[in-house]
Amino acid sequence: MTSRPLIALAMGDPAGISPELTAKLVAQDDIRARGRLVVIGDRRVFDEGARIAGVRPELKTIEQGADLRATEGDALFVDLGHLDPGQVERGVASLAGGQFALANYKRALELGRDGRVDAVCFTPFNKQAMRFARADYDDEIAFSAEVAGLKTPASEFNVLGELWNARVTSHIPLKDVAARLSGERIQLALKLTDSCMRNAGVARPRIAVAGLNPHAGDGGNFGREEIDIIAPAVAAGQRDGIAAEGPFPADTVFLRAKGGAFDAVLTMYHDQGQIAMKLMGFDRGVTLLGGFLFPICTPAHGTAYDIAGQGVASIGASRAAVLLAAEMAARRRGAKGGV
Amino acid sequence: MTSRPLIALAMGDPAGISPELTAKLVAQDDIRARGRLVVIGDRRVFDEGARIAGVRPELKTIEQGADLRATEGDALFVDLGHLDPGQVERGVASLAGGQFALANYKRALELGRDGRVDAVCFTPFNKQAMRFARADYDDEIAFSAEVAGLKTPASEFNVLGELWNARVTSHIPLKDVAARLSGERIQLALKLTDSCMRNAGVARPRIAVAGLNPHAGDGGNFGREEIDIIAPAVAAGQRDGIAAEGPFPADTVFLRAKGGAFDAVLTMYHDQGQIAMKLMGFDRGVTLLGGFLFPICTPAHGTAYDIAGQGVASIGASRAAVLLAAEMAARRRGAKGGV
Repeated sequence: MTSRPLIALAMGDPAGISPELTAKLVAQDDIRARGRLVVIGDRRVFDEGARIAGVRPELKTIEQGADLRATEGDALFVDLGHLDPGQVERGVASLAGGQFALANYKRALELGRDGRVDAVCFTPFNKQAMRFARADYDDEIAFSAEVAGLKTPASEFNVLGELWNARVTSHIPLKDVAARLSGERIQLALKLTDSCMRNAGVARPRIAVAGLNPHAGDGGNFGREEIDIIAPAVAAGQRDGIAAEGPFPADTVFLRAKGGAFDAVLTMYHDQGQIAMKLMGFDRGVTLLGGFLFPICTPAHGTAYDIAGQGVASIGASRAAVLLAAEMAARRRGAKGGV
Repeated sequence: MTSRPLIALAMGDPAGISPELTAKLVAQDDIRARGRLVVIGDRRVFDEGARIAGVRPELKTIEQGADLRATEGDALFVDLGHLDPGQVERGVASLAGGQFALANYKRALELGRDGRVDAVCFTPFNKQAMRFARADYDDEIAFSAEVAGLKTPASEFNVLGELWNARVTSHIPLKDVAARLSGERIQLALKLTDSCMRNAGVARPRIAVAGLNPHAGDGGNFGREEIDIIAPAVAAGQRDGIAAEGPFPADTVFLRAKGGAFDAVLTMYHDQGQIAMKLMGFDRGVTLLGGFLFPICTPAHGTAYDIAGQGVASIGASRAAVLLAAEMAARRRGAKGGV
C-alpha cells in the first residue's frame, strides 16, 4: 500500500501517437514515483505502442472490478480487450479508433466519479474519430461533465510552464460572446482559476483579466463591457481575496504575463487566449479540465498522425500533464510528500 | 535634381523619443540614399533631439512655400516655429505636445495630398496628447482621411519583417464585429492588401484569411460566418487573381505565417491580429496606412516616455518605416533604381 495518488490514464486515438506516448509515460521512473498509473485500453494496442517506443515497462493487468487501492504495483492495466491493433490503419481517423478512445475515457471518468482513482489523464484524441463514434461529441468538457454527473460549472485551462490561461466563454460563435459575459460568470471563472491554481501549488495566483474590446474599450470609446461588467467583477474578486487585476488590453496582457507580471490570464473568449498561447508554444503545454472533483489533464497537442508509429513523438507535454494531475491529486488528498 | 522620392517626416510627440528618433533618422546615410527627407517640426525641438541622439546631420531649413522638388539637398526642414522645447516637460503628455505633433502631421498630409511629397512618415504620437489638442481624435486613419480628403476605404497594416497583417474591422466594439463583416468588406480588404503589398515589392502576396469563430466555426458548429461570408469572399478574391486562402482557425494561422506559409494574414478584428503581432515582436515593426494616394508609415512602438532624453531609443522600427515608405513611393513613381 502507498499513499501516492491513483491516476487513470486513458489511451487516446490508436491511429496516432497515443499508444507510444502511453507506453513511454508508464516507463518513466519519476512519474511512477509521483503517482500510481491505471492505464485503460487494450493490452495489444499498448504492447504495440511499447514496441514502437522501444520501452518495456512493468505493468500488471488486473481484473476490471478489482479494488485499485488495495492492489499493489506501480502501474496497473485495465484491459477492455476491445481493439485489435491490426484493425486500425495508422494515420487515419476511424470509427473503431474513436470507439476505442471514447470507451477508455468513459471508463477513466467513471473511476474518477466513483472515487476509485484520484485523477484522470488521457493521451490525444482525434476529434473526427470521436465524432464517428458519437455524432454529437462536442468537446471534452461536455462529455466529461455528462459522465461524471457534474452539475456545477467546469472550465478548460491551458497551462504552459508557469503560465495559466482560463476563459470565460469558449466554443461559441464570436457574435454571442459579449451577450454571454456577465459579472457572475467572470467572478465564477476567477474563483475557479484561483482555486485550481492553489490546488496546483501556486500560493497566491496573480490573475490578469483581459478586456473584451480593442484597447480594452479605450475608456468606453470602443465598447463599454470593460466599464460595465469586467471591472466590477474584478473588484468583486479582489474583495473575495483573489489577486485579480484588470481589465487589460488583450494585445499586451500576454506579453506582460510572459514577462512574469502574472501567473494567469483570464480571457473573455476562446481565440483571445488561444492565439497567444499557441504562439508561445502551447503545443508543449497541458490542457486541464477544472471544476471536477478530480483533475483531468491531457497534453495540448494532437494525435500527430504524420509521425505516428516512428517512436519519435516527444513526451514532454504528456509528462507535464501527468505530473500536474499527480500534484493536484496529492494536494487534494492531503498526501503530498507522504509517499 | 534627383528622382529619389520625397518623404515628409512629421515630428511626433516632443515629450517622448520622437525628437531623438527624427534626428537619428536624418543622420542615416542609407536612408538619405533611398529618399529625400522633408522634416516638419520646430528646428529648436529637432536640434535638441540631435543633441540627445549625438548626431549632427546636414539639414537645410527651407521656406514654407518652397518648391520641394526644385530644392536641392538630401534633407530639408520645414520650420513651423511653433514650439520652444523648454515648454515641454519630458515624459508628460501635454496640450502643447499634442498641438505640435498634430500640426506637423497635418502639414505632412497636406504636402502628400497636394503631390508635393511622395510619402508621409511620422515618429510616435502620444494619444492622450493628441486628444488634448483635439478632443475627437480617434486614430490616424480617420484624421488622415479627413486632411487628405480621402473618400475611398483606407486601412491600417502592420508589417513585421516579411509578414503583413491587415484587418477587416478595427476600432469598434467586439460585439459589433460579426454584423460589420460582409463579403464586400472582405473583398475590399483583400484587394487593398494585395495592391499595397505588390506596391511594396511582393510579387504575388500569399494572403491567409482568418476565420471569425473558434476553430474557424468548426464546420458551422460554433458560428456560420466562415461558411456564409468569409469563404465566398475568399473565392471571389481568388477569381480576381488574388492568392488568398482560408478561412483558417485564427489560433494557428499566425504560426503557419510565421513559418513562411503566407506573406500576410487578413484578420477579421483588431485583437485577432494584434495579439499575435505584438507577441511576435511587432513593436519592432511598421504601421502602414494603406488606401491613400501616397504611403503613410510610422514605427509601431509608442513614445517611450520612460527612456526619452537618454539617447538610447532603438531606431530599428523607424528605419523600417521610412525604408518601406521610400520603396512604395519609388515604385509608385516608377522611379525605382533611377536615382
